[in-house]
This record gives sequence, structure tokens and C-alpha cells, in this order.
Amino acid sequence: MKLKLAILLALSAILKTASAQDSLFIRKIYDEALVNGQSYSNLNYLCKNIGQRLSGSANAQKAVDWSKKLMESYGFDKVFLQEVMVPHWVRGEKEVGEIVADGKRIPVPICALGMSVATPVNGLTADIIEVTSLKQLDTLGEARIKGKIVFFNRPFDPRFIGTMMAYGTAGDQRFMGPAAAAKYGAAGAIVRSLTELIDDYPHTGATDYDEKKIPAAAISTKGAEQLSALIKSGKGSVKFYFKQNCQLLPDAKSYNVVAELTGTESPNKFITVGGHLDSWDLAEGANDDGTGVMQSLEVLRILKVMNYRPKNSIRAVFFMNEENGDKGGEKYAELAKANKEEHIAAIESDAGGFTPLGFGFTGLPAGSLQKINQNWKHLLEPYQADHLLAGGGGSDIGPLTTASPNVVLIGYLPDSQRYFDLHHSAKDVFENVNKRELELGSAAMAAMVYLIDQHGF
Amino acid sequence: MKLKLAILLALSAILKTASAQDSLFIRKIYDEALVNGQSYSNLNYLCKNIGQRLSGSANAQKAVDWSKKLMESYGFDKVFLQEVMVPHWVRGEKEVGEIVADGKRIPVPICALGMSVATPVNGLTADIIEVTSLKQLDTLGEARIKGKIVFFNRPFDPRFIGTMMAYGTAGDQRFMGPAAAAKYGAAGAIVRSLTELIDDYPHTGATDYDEKKIPAAAISTKGAEQLSALIKSGKGSVKFYFKQNCQLLPDAKSYNVVAELTGTESPNKFITVGGHLDSWDLAEGANDDGTGVMQSLEVLRILKVMNYRPKNSIRAVFFMNEENGDKGGEKYAELAKANKEEHIAAIESDAGGFTPLGFGFTGLPAGSLQKINQNWKHLLEPYQADHLLAGGGGSDIGPLTTASPNVVLIGYLPDSQRYFDLHHSAKDVFENVNKRELELGSAAMAAMVYLIDQHGF
Repeated sequence: MKLKLAILLALSAILKTASAQDSLFIRKIYDEALVNGQSYSNLNYLCKNIGQRLSGSANAQKAVDWSKKLMESYGFDKVFLQEVMVPHWVRGEKEVGEIVADGKRIPVPICALGMSVATPVNGLTADIIEVTSLKQLDTLGEARIKGKIVFFNRPFDPRFIGTMMAYGTAGDQRFMGPAAAAKYGAAGAIVRSLTELIDDYPHTGATDYDEKKIPAAAISTKGAEQLSALIKSGKGSVKFYFKQNCQLLPDAKSYNVVAELTGTESPNKFITVGGHLDSWDLAEGANDDGTGVMQSLEVLRILKVMNYRPKNSIRAVFFMNEENGDKGGEKYAELAKANKEEHIAAIESDAGGFTPLGFGFTGLPAGSLQKINQNWKHLLEPYQADHLLAGGGGSDIGPLTTASPNVVLIGYLPDSQRYFDLHHSAKDVFENVNKRELELGSAAMAAMVYLIDQHGF
Repeated sequence: MKLKLAILLALSAILKTASAQDSLFIRKIYDEALVNGQSYSNLNYLCKNIGQRLSGSANAQKAVDWSKKLMESYGFDKVFLQEVMVPHWVRGEKEVGEIVADGKRIPVPICALGMSVATPVNGLTADIIEVTSLKQLDTLGEARIKGKIVFFNRPFDPRFIGTMMAYGTAGDQRFMGPAAAAKYGAAGAIVRSLTELIDDYPHTGATDYDEKKIPAAAISTKGAEQLSALIKSGKGSVKFYFKQNCQLLPDAKSYNVVAELTGTESPNKFITVGGHLDSWDLAEGANDDGTGVMQSLEVLRILKVMNYRPKNSIRAVFFMNEENGDKGGEKYAELAKANKEEHIAAIESDAGGFTPLGFGFTGLPAGSLQKINQNWKHLLEPYQADHLLAGGGGSDIGPLTTASPNVVLIGYLPDSQRYFDLHHSAKDVFENVNKRELELGSAAMAAMVYLIDQHGF
């Protein structure tokens, strides 16, 4: 036998052994998640005993305290808080929205967009003008817009397979629409809820102002359809009335909550897995993002209970303030930089607790995506979580590149079909999370953390 | 350039063109399903205006009539019925189940298993004996079993990734448990509902008797846990009482409902896509199997509306009587054989209307699974319906091998995590079907039919 061949065969035997070990270890991860999983009961507590936890709220503080205690109960190597100042926006009383047409007032479900200013105390009534893009505002100009309420009504494009893309491409209306309308002197903005479903639930979410701030609210998709039909019917003027008394209070003190299994070989190299602990205030933040934090914690619990001693330090991070400021993510990166922590990878779960399909990667070294598809895909295939794609990350982990330029940012990709049925609405409750789907996600994430810890990129 | 190389290059160019055309066509299929899809509104009608449609019932006949009309409204080349005699089992009054322990009677949710006989008119009370396997019956023997009610209580094994496997391995208790208990003289059988979820819903489903028939019912998983805990507490004897007056009436006349796009090249070669029109009687048969029939119809609608002229004949078949007899599937095969129809492939959708993950194949020619993974997988990858696996089929299409020995039987594989939360229980209603998930399934099936029609195996 020639030497080269012998080496090749030996190498292939080693690779196969490694792969078989990995395969066995991953099977055990899944067994632990599916048989003894605690993410579902933990999520139940977070949703039902704490509930909504908007940044700066008393509930957010309760969630921080409880999360820390919960992490401590598992006996990880470290559990600690990272103090961070966060915006403190409050919704105030339940909003009122009405279409005013033909002398009639038709109530429609609305809710203030996050970070919006209030209407005048007695509400705001104005002519309404419907647009389907921000560009259209430039065409209409101040002459047509000034003093009016701009109604952004471009629906989700159903043709996207993943609904995140539909959200991304319709989302400018909510993120930037009110600011753009304000530039042309609009009195207010009403934005079609960012969901494909036609129902009575308004979906909130942050809007970004420039200098000028006008009151902005989301309207349910059914309300939007009704409003649009009335405008288009041409039966006289259509006005809109809405009243909201939300406000932005001074920044509040809050915390990221962090648990760590310290690395045995490279304690100062980190693999972080996280979600965000804060939520919008209309429901329980079950899928956004109670599932993400509880899955992240479960990753650590699974690895610990399996007596896995990681090479690198592995952290579960409950980020604060993803929804309206990203201050927690920024703080985490700032401290990582200050403490000279090198992050190899960070995984974010912020797309709901649905059946895992795979992961999206940003910042991989050249050729590495091909390599991990060659070496890892088959390990995840039995679990149908084997879509390993280019592009991915998350709002909370994004800032880490400033601390570790080579960090690989990874977005956990669950099935996205139901996410925007619930997202930021009153429907984002525990009952809409499926136990097995959640647990399969924890297992997929634990498997990915394990593979990175063992093999790097 | 050498000839062989030239041929190879030319061939590769042709293949690439084919692939690009396929890719475009499949994208258009998805657009049609997602933008103009009718499966969801059709399913809504079937569930809400017709509802449960157990074989032999008046509702089953209503469903047949409506389905035929609906198919005719689309203008397919052929729409026809296939007459078939089916078992006609009726549940009768709502069942009563009680644990009798310590002088107390504790009501628990039960429902008769499909095809079960009734209890005596005033119900049946007997000592209860818990087992977790059919084998255990052999160990216990007549001495321990005779005159008792056997309580089959082996839960779903949560470690299976796909829940169909958990169903398959726990299912013997329902399919064969009562018959096995009857052999040893049991007076009745109570079977833990076939679901992983712990709740108050009993799940029905057919049981198969041998000669001796004893009354058999499903108990909710919560009831099963309660009953088991009481038995194990050792605080005196535990009896069980149940009352049901279900009965098997004479066979009834019913129908498969078939629509066809006739092939332009090989009209006598068929690709059949189907689900079953009958359902259990506790709910609306939404996911079992309203979704399957409506997706099958949608496959034909999509291809027709795209002006696709298939090479082979393509059929959507609404099979009758999958739940308690498989008579529709057998009849379809019998007629296929009599009419000398050659079936190339048959796809069955009977696993719920959830997000598609892929397809499972049985009866592929040697090497063909590898080939379709090479040639088709990448076409389905953008839609994440690209798991093309060995093994698959369905109860309705299974008999086709007697008519076409070379038929490839294909099981449509949606995400299975939520299926047994609902399956055969009062929860199998329209509200538990997600529009986009359903539509993506129709599109995946249409894409598969198209690929088979174009390329064969």
C-alpha cells in the first residue's frame, strides 16, 4: 500500500469516527430535548406568570429577576447581569380608531406604533390619503399630503416563500413611513399591519422618526381593507380619527441576563446563543421572543446535563430591548470588546419557536459554507434542520462584529409560515407555541453550538 | 474538440436548459398557489358547510356531490364518480366513561373506537388491568385478563423526530389491542389516545377485530394518566365503567370522486394525486384529510390555469373510506386494472396540511432516488420541500401496485409536529389549518407531478 493511500484511508477513518461520534452526540441532544425538555414549561411561566415585558416596564424587571434565578438554578459556571439603559415607551390607554365617512363613524382596530408620539388629547381627525409606497409620497408632495393622515396600505407579497422576506419588503412602511410622511407635513400616519392574514388584530412594532414626530398607529388588515374600499368607492370624503396617549419616558435601567459554561481549552473564546427577553406589550411575547430565550437557555441546560465540557465558553444571552432600541445587543458587544472576549460565533433565535429548518450564516471564511454543508449537513438531515444557507444573523448579535471582526453570525431558521400571524399582536401568546416544535429548535441549536465548539469553521 | 466532449457539452447545455425551464415553471406554480390559491376557501366550505363525513353518512354523500360539482366548475377534461360499497359504522350517543375507585365515580373523556361494538345498554363495569404492550397480554394470560377491561397505556415515544413513527409504534394498541385482549376473554378495552399531548380530548380511529368483538374506546391522555396513577396508587381496587351504543350498519353505497387532465402524449398513462374525502365524525376532518383532497384538486387547478398540457393523464382522486375500510383505494386500483390504465406514479397527501418538507418514495427503479436527488432536489430547495427520501406511500394508493406493478408510490411529507395534536379528535377543525402552509403543500405537490410528467423516473 502506498503511503499516500494509507494516510488517506487513515484520515478517512478518523473523519468517519468523528462524524459517527458527532452523530451519536447529536442524537443524545435530541433525546434530552424531547424527553426531558424544560423550555416549554419555562416559557409557560414567562408568558403566564410574567407576561408582556416591554423595555423599561416593571414586568421587564420581573423577567430579568426571574431569568437570573432560573439560570442560577441550573448550576452553570457563571450567571450575571449586564446593566444597560433602555428607552422606556408606554402605550397608555387603549387606542381608538375610526373611519369617518358619509357622516358615519366606523370603529376599526388600531394600536399605536412603538415609540410613537400621542395624538392631541381629544384625538386627531383629518382627511386620509392612501399610498402603497414611500416613493409615492415624493410624487404627491406637500401640496397633497400636508395636514392629512397618510395611510400606508401595501400588503405583504404572498409570493415570498419565507415570510421574513415579505416582512422585510413591506416593513419600510412601518419603520420609515411615518417619518417620511412627516417631512411633507402629514398630521399622522396609519400603517397596515405587517401580516398576510386578514383579521381584526393590529400589529404594533417600532417606528423610526427623523426630527419631526407625528402620531402613528397600525390598523388591522381587515380595517385596512375596509378603509381602502371606502376611499376607492369615491362616495365623498373619507376622514380618519384616532386617539392615543402613548409617550416616551426617560431611559430606564435594565439588564441583559447571561449564563455561561466556561470553556476548558479556550475560556476566552465564546460561542453565544441568544434571543431577546423584552417583548411588545399587546400579549405575552411568546414567539417574539420568549421561545428564543428559552431555547437558548435550553441549549446550555442540555449540554450541561450531558456533562459536556466545551472547548470554548458557551453563553446563553437574554438580550434586553431588541424591540425598540437594540440597546442590549449593543451593550453586550461593547462589553465583549472592553473585556477582550473573542467571539467565534453567535446564534440568534428570534423568528419564533416553530419547527426548525436550518441556519443562515454571515461572516463565514471563504469556502466554509461549502465545507459545513459537506461535513455537517448530513448530521442535521435526520432532524430536517439541514438547510445551511448563506446570510443570517440577528439584531442582538449584529453589533458583535465591532468586538470580534471574525465572528460568524448565525440566524436560527424555523419554519416561518405562522410567525406573522402572531407577531407583535395580541395573539402572540403561549397557546400558539407547540411543545415539540420548540424542543426540536432547542436541540437543533444545541447541535449547531456543539459542532462549532468541536470543529470551528 | 473531441466528439465525446462535444456531445457531453451539448447534453449538459440541454440539461441546463431543461432545468432552467423546470425552475421557472415551478416558480410559477408557487406564484399561482400563493397568490390565487383556492384550496383554503374550498377547505373552509368542506369543513364548515359539510363538516364530518364518515363513510356511509349523509354528510359523506353531501361531500361527494359537492366535490363533483366543484371539480366540474374548473372545466377539467373529465370528472367522474367511482361507485364503491363502504362500511357504515355509527357512533350513536355520546359515550360515558368513568373511573370507579374508592367508591367514587370520576368521569373521564372517552370515545368509541371506530368499528367498535357497543357495551351492554346500561354500560359495562369491570376491574381494569393496565398494560403497555400487546406482548404483556400473553404473559398475563386468560387467568389475569378474563372478564376485565384491558387498559392499553403505552404513550407516544417522544424521541421520534417525525411523529408518524411515534404513531406507528404506539398504534398497535388501538389497531390490534382490543382483538388481542378479546382472545384472553377481556370484557372490554380502553386505549390511551394516540397523541403526545396531554389533554382532555379522546382520539378515535379504527380498531381491527378478529372473530371476538369486545367494546373498545379511546381515553384522553389526561384521563389515561389519571387512571394509571389511581391503579398504581394501590389504594384498593380500580374499576372502569363505560357506555357506548355505536353499531355497524349494512354496507352503504358511496363514491370516489375523480377529476382528470387527459394526457396529450400518453393518455392511458396516469399520475394520480389524492387524499381521502371521508373523515372521522368527531370534528370536521380538516387536516385528516380535507387538506389532502383540497391540495390534490388544487394541483389540477394550478396546472390547468397555467395551460399546462400534460404528457400523461393527471388525476386528482378524492378517495372514499380510508378511515375504516380502505374500500375507495381498493376500488380505484380494481378499476385501474380492469381498464388497463398504467399508473406511473401516485402521490398521497394524508399527513395534514402543514408546511411541506418533501416526499417519500416507494417502488423507484434502482438508482432512481439518487437520480432525482441529483436532478430535482435543487429545484425544490428554494421552497424547502426538498427532502426526497426512500419509503413512502399511503393507504389509498397502496393497492395500485396490483394494477400497475411498476407504479411509484409517493407520500407527501409535511411537517408532522402538530398532526397528532389534532388527529381523529374534536380538534381537527378548519381553524387549525394555516392558509400558507396548505398552499405551499399544493404547490410542492404540483411541482412533483410536473417533474414526473416531464421526466419520469
